[in-house]
This record gives sequence, C-alpha cells and structure tokens, in this order.
Amino acid sequence: MTDVYALSSVDELGPVLKDYDRTLMVTDSNASKLVDLPSSSIVLPPGECEKRWESVDRILSRALELSLARDSVFIGFGGGVILDMASFASSVYMRGARLVLVPTTLLSMVDATLGGKTGFDYHGIKNLVGTFYPAEAVLIVPDTLRTLPESEFRSGLGEVVKHAFLSKDRKLHEFLIENHDAIMARKSDVLSEMIRLSLEVKIWYITRDPEEKKGIRSALNLGHTFGHALESLRGFSVSHGEGVAWGMHKAFRAGVELGVTPEDFASSAVSLLELYGFDGDESIADDEFSRYLAAIRSDKKKSGGSVKFVLMEGQGLPVLTPLADEDIRKAVSC
Amino acid sequence: MTDVYALSSVDELGPVLKDYDRTLMVTDSNASKLVDLPSSSIVLPPGECEKRWESVDRILSRALELSLARDSVFIGFGGGVILDMASFASSVYMRGARLVLVPTTLLSMVDATLGGKTGFDYHGIKNLVGTFYPAEAVLIVPDTLRTLPESEFRSGLGEVVKHAFLSKDRKLHEFLIENHDAIMARKSDVLSEMIRLSLEVKIWYITRDPEEKKGIRSALNLGHTFGHALESLRGFSVSHGEGVAWGMHKAFRAGVELGVTPEDFASSAVSLLELYGFDGDESIADDEFSRYLAAIRSDKKKSGGSVKFVLMEGQGLPVLTPLADEDIRKAVSC
Repeated sequence: MTDVYALSSVDELGPVLKDYDRTLMVTDSNASKLVDLPSSSIVLPPGECEKRWESVDRILSRALELSLARDSVFIGFGGGVILDMASFASSVYMRGARLVLVPTTLLSMVDATLGGKTGFDYHGIKNLVGTFYPAEAVLIVPDTLRTLPESEFRSGLGEVVKHAFLSKDRKLHEFLIENHDAIMARKSDVLSEMIRLSLEVKIWYITRDPEEKKGIRSALNLGHTFGHALESLRGFSVSHGEGVAWGMHKAFRAGVELGVTPEDFASSAVSLLELYGFDGDESIADDEFSRYLAAIRSDKKKSGGSVKFVLMEGQGLPVLTPLADEDIRKAVSC
Repeated sequence: MTDVYALSSVDELGPVLKDYDRTLMVTDSNASKLVDLPSSSIVLPPGECEKRWESVDRILSRALELSLARDSVFIGFGGGVILDMASFASSVYMRGARLVLVPTTLLSMVDATLGGKTGFDYHGIKNLVGTFYPAEAVLIVPDTLRTLPESEFRSGLGEVVKHAFLSKDRKLHEFLIENHDAIMARKSDVLSEMIRLSLEVKIWYITRDPEEKKGIRSALNLGHTFGHALESLRGFSVSHGEGVAWGMHKAFRAGVELGVTPEDFASSAVSLLELYGFDGDESIADDEFSRYLAAIRSDKKKSGGSVKFVLMEGQGLPVLTPLADEDIRKAVSC
C-alpha cells in the first residue's frame, strides 16, 4: 500500500526527493512555481483540456530522452490532472516504473493520490483510458494550499464533505462543522487534520476493493454519476468538487424520493453541504435533459449497459442502484 | 491465473465465444481469414509496424463506439502483435476490461499469450509502453497453424527451443530431437504436446515472478537482449524467433568465453538450435558495432542504467549478468 508522509513545508521536498536516484518530475506551469525545478523535469500546460494522450506521449518521450529505466522514479507534482497523467505514464513506461506523488491541490490531496487510479480523458469521456497503479509514496505539503485559488479549494472541499457522509462514524462531519472558519482561513494544522480524517475514509473503501470489482470502492462515486454528467454537459466549466457536491444533492433527493435515504440523514447532509456553500440549486432544463441522459449513459462506471448510482441508506451506508430515467429527471429538474 | 483450453478446430471457436456477452474481436487482415468475423470486430493491417499507439487508439475508439463496459470482453485473435495490442487496449479501457486470447501463430501460442505482458512499440523500441494484464482465458487451436507461413512457424520454434534450455529437465529437449520430422510436418497432436511442454516451462518462470521484479521471469529473456538489438539494427527484418535463436548462440558463446556456461551444455544446445535450422552465423561487422551497442543500451530490460544478459550455467540454470562492451563484441563478431 502507499505510504503517506506529511511535510511541513515545500523546502523539505528537495532533500526528500534527492533520496531517489533517477527521476523525472512531471508538473504543470502553475505548480512548477511552488518549487525549484530539477533539470530532469517536464512542465506541461495546465488544465483538464490537456489531460489527453498527447500529454502522456510528451511525458513518455521525455522519460525515454532521459534514458529512464524500470527502476527510475516518476514524480507527479501538481493537481489531479498532472498526477493522473504522471501516474498513467509511470504505469505503462516499460510496463511500470516507480511512482511518487506530491499533490498541490486540496482535491488531489484527498482524492487523486490514494487508490492508484490513473488515466486521461478520451473522446470527451473523463478517465476513459487508465490503469490501477498505486504510488509507492505520497507526500502531503498543506503549505502548498496557501496560494490555491478559492474555486479549487472549494472543489477539494466537495470531496471532503463526501467523505464525511461515507465515513462509518460522524467524526469528520462534526469536525467540518466545528472547524468551518479555521478551514476556510486555511489554517495549516486544521487542514492537516481534515486531510488525515478524509484520507482515513477513502482508505477504508479502497483497501476493501482495490480494483473496484466488488461494488465497495464504487461507493466513493457518491455524487459522481450525477455530477460528471453535469460537468460533461457544461463542457467541464463546473469544477469537479462542485459537480460532485451538486450530484450529492441530487443523490439525496433521489434517495428520499425512492424511500432509500432517511429524511433526517438527507437533511443533515444537505445542511453540511450548504454550510460549505454547495447549494445544489442548478437544475437541468427539459430541453437539455436528453443530452444530460446521454452523458450519464456514457459514464464509464456503467456495467453491462446499466449505469449504477450511489444512494445513501444512512451514515456510512452507501448502496449501488440503477435509476429509471424518470427518477433521474425528477432528481435533476427544478 | 490464466486458464488454457485446447480446441480441436476453429469451428469450435464460434460456440465458445458466444458464451461471452458483449465482445470486441480484435484481429488483423491475415488472421481474420481463419474465422467467421462477428459484427463487433476490428480488423487492423498486419505487421510489427502497426504495433503503435495509433492502432491501440483505433481499438479503443471501436470499443467506445460499441459502448463496451468494464465487464465486456476484448478477444484478441491473431499473432503476437495483435494479441499484445488487444491486451494493452483491454488493460487500459475503463482501467481494465475482460480479456480472452486466441493465438493463431506458433510464436504467440508459446510466447505472447501467457504471463500478461501487453504493449506496443514506441520511438523504435519494442514494447516500451505496456502493462501486465493476464488474460482470463487462452484458447489454443493448433489447427490454425496449418496455413502459417514457414518463416513464422520457424519464428515460434525459436522460442520453443529456448524453453527446452530453460526447463528444469531435458524432457522438451528430448521431445524436440525425437519428433523433429513430425513437428516440421506440423502434425496436430505432436504440435499440441510440444506447445503443452513449452507452456509448462514458461508457467514455471512466470508464476514465480509475475511482474518481472525478482530476476526469475527475466530468464525468459534468454537470447532476447542480443536478439532484439539485432532485430532493431536490421529494422525488424529479422523475425522474433530467429533473433532470439541467434541471440542464444551469442549468449552461449559469451557464457563459455567467461567460464559461466559448461562447454558440453553449450554444444548440446547449439546442436538442437542447428537441428531446427538456426545456425547463428550472422555477425555484427566492426563498422556497425557502435550502432548495435546503442540498440542494446536502449533495450527496455536495462535497470539502473546497466543492461543485463541471460547466460546459462547449465540445464535450467539461467543467470542474469551485465557484460562488458568487449565481451559483447567478442560474442557477436565473426
């Protein structure tokens, strides 16, 4: 399993990375500002649009140019897009080189670094091409979050809140209520604890189902099926965390409607979402619903032709279920 | 582990494949002549030159066009090139779909189907990009070998002979001496037994080191480092098995020269190679030796910068070792 280390500042990174022999640092022009770049690095343009084969191709070419071997180390340094691509490239270079990840966004700290999902977007579908390839180490530096744009910070919070619902206890839920102001002020020690609690939840699910084959890990997709389709419909102008938060609103609505989700659990969950500014007000108009449905159908989590949604039966009790088109319409309409 | 089934004729294939629900058959225009193609198939041009990202891209696009899900089945039907690409595509489609392989060449029956190596060529380096992804089932139909061109049949024999040296006992070696004529006449039952004995050897090595991390599985590369570099130098005009057979001659020569390989083992091995028409006479001229060395250095099996060769200490006793440039030169020169 992946080792997670917390570093108190970016300055500690250089000495830690020096311990690795032959490396290639993969980053983008945003994240690269946070660190002194080593000479064996590749800096890609930032953004989800760049998450495609051509970028992976550039990483692999650079690795080859540097004569990297199977025991060389790919170091992903950046947000989820960079980490997913660096991880994918590492997983296929000579059928698998070594991999270390340094997430620099809240979303990637709590979402992209653990569990080994790698990939890139293909024909407009997020992460359609990918592998399972856990990093040998993840280095968390909460320091790097200080300069993170507000929208990206919020995007990460969407996933943290999701983990609060999926947790077997209410510890993270309570923590998020009690420390709301310190979190929004990005106090390093509070963020560290929040990230730790959030990763604990994620680890609970992925260790029980590393390759998403038993329907356990799939619970981490709470809000994702509704949310991805919105992101896809709006051409990725909705951030991942916002999409997931919106999707959770819809999943609670569908769950209550179908008698799966207890009303008091749903209302407490909705309160936490709203405390963090995720209102879920956006709705899918009738004339765009067919396009929305098509986006859901092409969601990669479908199995044997049917798309499964994660609904909640209560705290830490996810359940996977297909939904009728009419139930989806009810959940996402005004 | 992969299940291996032997079918007595291609006609049995249709009913067997019908048991799988949603499939994509990946084949090339040579192999496709052997079977009634299902409608959900993709036929690629044949040949090693096609073993590149663009072909994988076409397979993935077709899978997407057919709305395949993670539990759909990619069926590789053809020689090693097709099987490696179908396997790679299957391993990355939605982070891993199901995979069944039907090899139609001797080389792919004994070499490419077991052990889960997938991949494609990249910047002129064979299989530089790939994954480990064992098929759930391999269907062997010796029937398909009847129309195989002589050169391709010989190419497969090169790997079979290699397995005779790597085997812990001399069973396969003796079988190849005793049944030479029946093998060359492609008698189905004799080929079946030869393939079975050959796969037993391969399985012995791969089950002890599935991801080639312990230096055990690497023994299967006997002849490959010398041979791949020759293939690379000659622009892939040398067949894989011929390259490997030539490489084994060189490995025995280097081994004897360095006192690693007993002379009587080497001479018995060389006799078997010669019985099957692999003479190893070709040599690397002085003025092309630097290019040959460069091809060796870029061999993907190098680790931490040094390329390791497989030498033999006797029957079933491979050893991995780096070689000095001068020792390589002695082995491959006239």
